[in-house]
Amino acid sequence: MNRLFLTSAVVLAVVIVSETQAQETVPQPPKVLTRQERGEKVMNSFSQGQGLPPHFQQLQKDFPELADLTLKYAVGDIWGREVLDDKTRQLVSLAGFAAEGTMPQFKVHAQYALNYGVTPEELMEVIYITTVTSGYPRALIAAGTLKELFQENNVKFPVTSQQ
Amino acid sequence: MNRLFLTSAVVLAVVIVSETQAQETVPQPPKVLTRQERGEKVMNSFSQGQGLPPHFQQLQKDFPELADLTLKYAVGDIWGREVLDDKTRQLVSLAGFAAEGTMPQFKVHAQYALNYGVTPEELMEVIYITTVTSGYPRALIAAGTLKELFQENNVKFPVTSQQ
Amino acid sequence: MNRLFLTSAVVLAVVIVSETQAQETVPQPPKVLTRQERGEKVMNSFSQGQGLPPHFQQLQKDFPELADLTLKYAVGDIWGREVLDDKTRQLVSLAGFAAEGTMPQFKVHAQYALNYGVTPEELMEVIYITTVTSGYPRALIAAGTLKELFQENNVKFPVTSQQ
Amino acid sequence: MNRLFLTSAVVLAVVIVSETQAQETVPQPPKVLTRQERGEKVMNSFSQGQGLPPHFQQLQKDFPELADLTLKYAVGDIWGREVLDDKTRQLVSLAGFAAEGTMPQFKVHAQYALNYGVTPEELMEVIYITTVTSGYPRALIAAGTLKELFQENNVKFPVTSQQ
Amino acid sequence: MNRLFLTSAVVLAVVIVSETQAQETVPQPPKVLTRQERGEKVMNSFSQGQGLPPHFQQLQKDFPELADLTLKYAVGDIWGREVLDDKTRQLVSLAGFAAEGTMPQFKVHAQYALNYGVTPEELMEVIYITTVTSGYPRALIAAGTLKELFQENNVKFPVTSQQ
Amino acid sequence: MNRLFLTSAVVLAVVIVSETQAQETVPQPPKVLTRQERGEKVMNSFSQGQGLPPHFQQLQKDFPELADLTLKYAVGDIWGREVLDDKTRQLVSLAGFAAEGTMPQFKVHAQYALNYGVTPEELMEVIYITTVTSGYPRALIAAGTLKELFQENNVKFPVTSQQ
Repeated sequence: MNRLFLTSAVVLAVVIVSETQAQETVPQPPKVLTRQERGEKVMNSFSQGQGLPPHFQQLQKDFPELADLTLKYAVGDIWGREVLDDKTRQLVSLAGFAAEGTMPQFKVHAQYALNYGVTPEELMEVIYITTVTSGYPRALIAAGTLKELFQENNVKFPVTSQQ
Repeated sequence: MNRLFLTSAVVLAVVIVSETQAQETVPQPPKVLTRQERGEKVMNSFSQGQGLPPHFQQLQKDFPELADLTLKYAVGDIWGREVLDDKTRQLVSLAGFAAEGTMPQFKVHAQYALNYGVTPEELMEVIYITTVTSGYPRALIAAGTLKELFQENNVKFPVTSQQ
Repeated sequence: MNRLFLTSAVVLAVVIVSETQAQETVPQPPKVLTRQERGEKVMNSFSQGQGLPPHFQQLQKDFPELADLTLKYAVGDIWGREVLDDKTRQLVSLAGFAAEGTMPQFKVHAQYALNYGVTPEELMEVIYITTVTSGYPRALIAAGTLKELFQENNVKFPVTSQQ
Repeated sequence: MNRLFLTSAVVLAVVIVSETQAQETVPQPPKVLTRQERGEKVMNSFSQGQGLPPHFQQLQKDFPELADLTLKYAVGDIWGREVLDDKTRQLVSLAGFAAEGTMPQFKVHAQYALNYGVTPEELMEVIYITTVTSGYPRALIAAGTLKELFQENNVKFPVTSQQ
Repeated sequence: MNRLFLTSAVVLAVVIVSETQAQETVPQPPKVLTRQERGEKVMNSFSQGQGLPPHFQQLQKDFPELADLTLKYAVGDIWGREVLDDKTRQLVSLAGFAAEGTMPQFKVHAQYALNYGVTPEELMEVIYITTVTSGYPRALIAAGTLKELFQENNVKFPVTSQQ
Repeated sequence: MNRLFLTSAVVLAVVIVSETQAQETVPQPPKVLTRQERGEKVMNSFSQGQGLPPHFQQLQKDFPELADLTLKYAVGDIWGREVLDDKTRQLVSLAGFAAEGTMPQFKVHAQYALNYGVTPEELMEVIYITTVTSGYPRALIAAGTLKELFQENNVKFPVTSQQ
């Protein structure tokens, strides 16, 4: 095996790695995920191991570039962070969606929160806090969205924490 | 002790109770707090036992009715709830303030969060999530407010969680 | 009548008062309303004596705590204030809802305004002002909501003040 | 007088009318104001007969076209409407500004409201209502702006309606 | 032809001009349009020569004064400006609508943009930029509206610029 | 040179590539930029070849992770796109910032727009359009920010397109 071949092999290996953004397959702990892989892993965690949710697969069909940005940035880079625990990260996100009044995203992430074990009572706390941060209408509109979600998940009504 | 005196005593007791909104003074566990007391207790918790913060005392002087509504409703009724733990409740509130771009309240509650033991790294997570829920400008503006707060609290720079 | 019984009676009376938040029943003008009573009185005024509106009764079934906060705070504490007259209070509230784009609340309170005698022409003034404070889209969206409301109330079209 | 001269005179008259947007000068009650005149009349009413406020004169120097649109549309077309009375029109506008958090405009129009005879207590009602429509932070920020205004107008503190 | 008749004719002509805000029909370059005419001309340009769009004609029937303000101010005064080219003016407007989340106006103006020759790929750029200026939810909601529009216009899916 | 050494060299090379996300340095047209490089290239274009602007260098010192996300996502992924031309991309972004009322970002990007050759008159068009999409206050506040910028850039006042 001569030197030229070896050097070429190194360069080839590097080029392959660069183009696919894949990490090496040689065993080494811990494996560094690509942004795409990280996004898919988080999505899979959101859906309790069911992979990419149907609404996201539809986005990939309609607007592949937008889906790609969403998966890598919003899901991978941001929701893939590990400083806060999964439940808190979703509650914080829900507070932002409720303040903005962006209900499609609020509903999807409230489902993810339930999947992570956040209780309906804890989700209601986001509503109460929203009355202070953003006013009653935003809170009541988000509560209406939670009602839909709770019905879809057979959550028992009424939801109250009996404080 | 005649009947009239007794009746008067009952009425008097009731009137006192009504006027002060205080509950009975006969020992009984657990004492039910009035809304005012609950607000003051939460404020004292926010300030690590220093009582009402100076900015709130100023509000009481300038606009007593607005201060009264704030103490009883926002602080007592809402932040006095106990379903979420103290740290999570502040992180959720901060997400709402960051989304709205209401920096005076964001700063005050970020200080309360630090007082509760939320770390600067955890506060930064609200910023990262805000880039997704509300866009980069709202996140960068809130980060600027955190910088002021961190400097006032001698938090070491740069703040990073080295993920 | 022994002392123990008397003391018990006082405690019982006080406990009852505490639990119901009712004021004493000894005749005295003017009767001070509890927050709950004040909220119910204002709601009854909103609905022209028809009591709690159906949408609010539904909220009580679904989310009793949220309904309780709404009735006591938003309705009782705030809309129960008497500095502004009823019509002005609703017009001011509608301007806030229109600016936020929170149409469910805008519609409900526009109905209350009609009930109080606010004319369709006066409601349209909120729309015109909203074009300035919040832009044309928010104004046009609120106008669409008013159209629904006017049709439900058999208000004659077109609505114009022929200025 | 030949035909050409007459035709020219008509054209000249029309051109003059077009350029100045003035209505005919033949005496007739009531005079229909141009949009510009209507805007100036309303501005003069805002400032209690002091003509165009200094901040608006500055806008005319910096951005004449923007000032022109503001005077004719926002001031003339909208605030020049007469369906609501002057006080109510300002209170409704202030609710919109408070909800949006646009404090420069909130302050200017709160001054106009004081000029029209709206009391400090009535201005505070906009703040209380804003806690419901848009949340506590927007309300507290607007209250801070009112404090500045009240100090500039020597309004006695604390402001409370003792409800 | 005597003098009195001629003078009367001039006055009559001026009065007619004033009342209708129409300009003279005597040939002269360039014709100065009234605000109404300018609005109608721009609307006709929006609709590729099809005159006033059906949704606007409905607004004229329901709320004539609001339609009049919209046609003269929003359409005539603002979208009738000529500093930016037609495509850029619509893209800038769409960014504002997307940030506000006002989808009825976003959709109507995205159609106008397509009519002007803006490509689906260029419309998608507004979506990508909105993820930065206003966050992912506003961007995804606007993308959903574009999907409806693209389907109505038989735009081929998926839309991607293959960058 | 034994096999173990060779394998190690390949792994080392791959690890270095992974950590820096740099592409291969072997000449090949066209070079695919890393996200970091793309962000730096766009920033350099924003600043007319002056590299990273001082405000961004400060962000890197204070909050390195947030700066990293901003450079790679907002600047590289989004403003590095090439479907719209540079001027239009900035005008669209400015419309979003004006609608949100996020003035620090509005000002920075208005400077970038001037650097790209956008004229002051074209920047004012964003203001006029904002009166329609988001109301007068947002437009006037953004105009105030443009005034600061124009003064810093010695733009001659008044700015008008004399339409």
